[in-house]
Amino acid sequence: MTVPGVVGSQEWVPRTEDFRERVRDVFAKQRALQLVGATLEEVEPGFVEIHMRRTDEVTQHHGMVHGGVIGMLADTAGALAALTIASAGGVGVTVEYKVNLLAPATDELMVARGHLIRSGRPLSVAHAHVYGVSDEREMLVATSLGTFAGR
Amino acid sequence: MTVPGVVGSQEWVPRTEDFRERVRDVFAKQRALQLVGATLEEVEPGFVEIHMRRTDEVTQHHGMVHGGVIGMLADTAGALAALTIASAGGVGVTVEYKVNLLAPATDELMVARGHLIRSGRPLSVAHAHVYGVSDEREMLVATSLGTFAGR
Amino acid sequence: MTVPGVVGSQEWVPRTEDFRERVRDVFAKQRALQLVGATLEEVEPGFVEIHMRRTDEVTQHHGMVHGGVIGMLADTAGALAALTIASAGGVGVTVEYKVNLLAPATDELMVARGHLIRSGRPLSVAHAHVYGVSDEREMLVATSLGTFAGR
Amino acid sequence: MTVPGVVGSQEWVPRTEDFRERVRDVFAKQRALQLVGATLEEVEPGFVEIHMRRTDEVTQHHGMVHGGVIGMLADTAGALAALTIASAGGVGVTVEYKVNLLAPATDELMVARGHLIRSGRPLSVAHAHVYGVSDEREMLVATSLGTFAGR
Repeated sequence: MTVPGVVGSQEWVPRTEDFRERVRDVFAKQRALQLVGATLEEVEPGFVEIHMRRTDEVTQHHGMVHGGVIGMLADTAGALAALTIASAGGVGVTVEYKVNLLAPATDELMVARGHLIRSGRPLSVAHAHVYGVSDEREMLVATSLGTFAGR
Repeated sequence: MTVPGVVGSQEWVPRTEDFRERVRDVFAKQRALQLVGATLEEVEPGFVEIHMRRTDEVTQHHGMVHGGVIGMLADTAGALAALTIASAGGVGVTVEYKVNLLAPATDELMVARGHLIRSGRPLSVAHAHVYGVSDEREMLVATSLGTFAGR
Repeated sequence: MTVPGVVGSQEWVPRTEDFRERVRDVFAKQRALQLVGATLEEVEPGFVEIHMRRTDEVTQHHGMVHGGVIGMLADTAGALAALTIASAGGVGVTVEYKVNLLAPATDELMVARGHLIRSGRPLSVAHAHVYGVSDEREMLVATSLGTFAGR
Repeated sequence: MTVPGVVGSQEWVPRTEDFRERVRDVFAKQRALQLVGATLEEVEPGFVEIHMRRTDEVTQHHGMVHGGVIGMLADTAGALAALTIASAGGVGVTVEYKVNLLAPATDELMVARGHLIRSGRPLSVAHAHVYGVSDEREMLVATSLGTFAGR
């Protein structure tokens, strides 16, 4: 029985033993993520967590993290969550994503969590949530829903 | 601390005592929902649940529930979840929504659950998930993310 | 050279001679569209037009056409626009769609136009625009963007 | 009479004389856009055009421009198109956006065009299209639909 509101909490079974290495390898090759200072902090079946410090370089005109950069983190978190359950030759290619910006991204640390919802061929679907984190508090600053190809 | 994957699980405080009546009243006036046979089964702060039987009338060319009808249930569940936290004069008007169809909607019963994520002025944001239900099993057939005005 | 703003204006070449019949056949089998009173008025390569009268049965609580019904028209227009360029065994299955409601749908006639943007395997992408029409005036009431499988 | 497929082609009347300066000023303050090497090439009522060279720094693991960067260009093009019609105190804040990636972004030059569809209070809506440009050829690589606040 699915628990209401806990979409993305299901157990996922990886198709390859080295899924963590493969996801980390893909992440490491995405130069655009290095450009914004993103790091991959966690890789689990159906789940990844990406961190990014709010530096001046990733801001918009009000000093907050640019919505496009937030979207980039959400897109990547969703794509990599899908990739954790891919087969050996699988690639994590984004078909489309939609992101809602919910609150000003003013915290020092942005944490993007991708949760796989559906793993399929040819398509997977993932939610990603981006949090602004300060000390002990986490605030949801964006939520996204995306479709990914290439399992 | 927010629990990963449990977005929409926060506690919401209604702004009016009669929020259940107001949400039910809005639902009752939406003729289009009667047309497809939808019923409002649950109204809680930040949450609503809508049911719909799969009759021939709401199907598409493969005998499944039409994706547009699924989207309609998701849209309405999100809008009404937002309305549970609205002020007395609040209306639940959809600004936009996006829905991913995840699996064939072949079950006899469709259950749409709207979860409020952000309640704000001028905008609220809600997720909605639509499940196909048969006996004891629930399967996620669609997930959506929408923006609503009029708090 | 693509003309700015005229996305969806490119020339499409059908893959089968009987694409109009096939699209009309799919439309005719979608019972949910009959339920809301939609009719298929035009089928061209990469383009379809669907009409729907605003009857009381398809309204929401303010007497306007329900946003979910508008979404249903947009979804169907996009899916069928994609289907015009499908191969013989192609089906028009919606992967996801997003719709923005732009103005109150108070006109007597709703006209949904689907414009194919990308035809591909496994995915096609289409825009759809829904207009409220009264006498000589057309007003854009919704715009959508969707992804469709099954070429 | 609206011309089918030419959504975003309507005439827009700016609310301030200095709208070009204001849009350019906002763009110049968005550090994240400088980070990816984007430049604002054109500002007209209801329309902006942004360019970006494909450098190694903005790529993903296959050497194409990262989908998140494409989304960032589309988001910004839509937000600034909305800002061209804003009042003096208006800000261009993104509420949400959805982007479909249509083709590999392998060209040397990316051109993002934002087209305002609806200008309103509290919300505006814009399409943006991103093209890969090589010599005389333009290819559509992404299309987006977004909602913006703060007119």
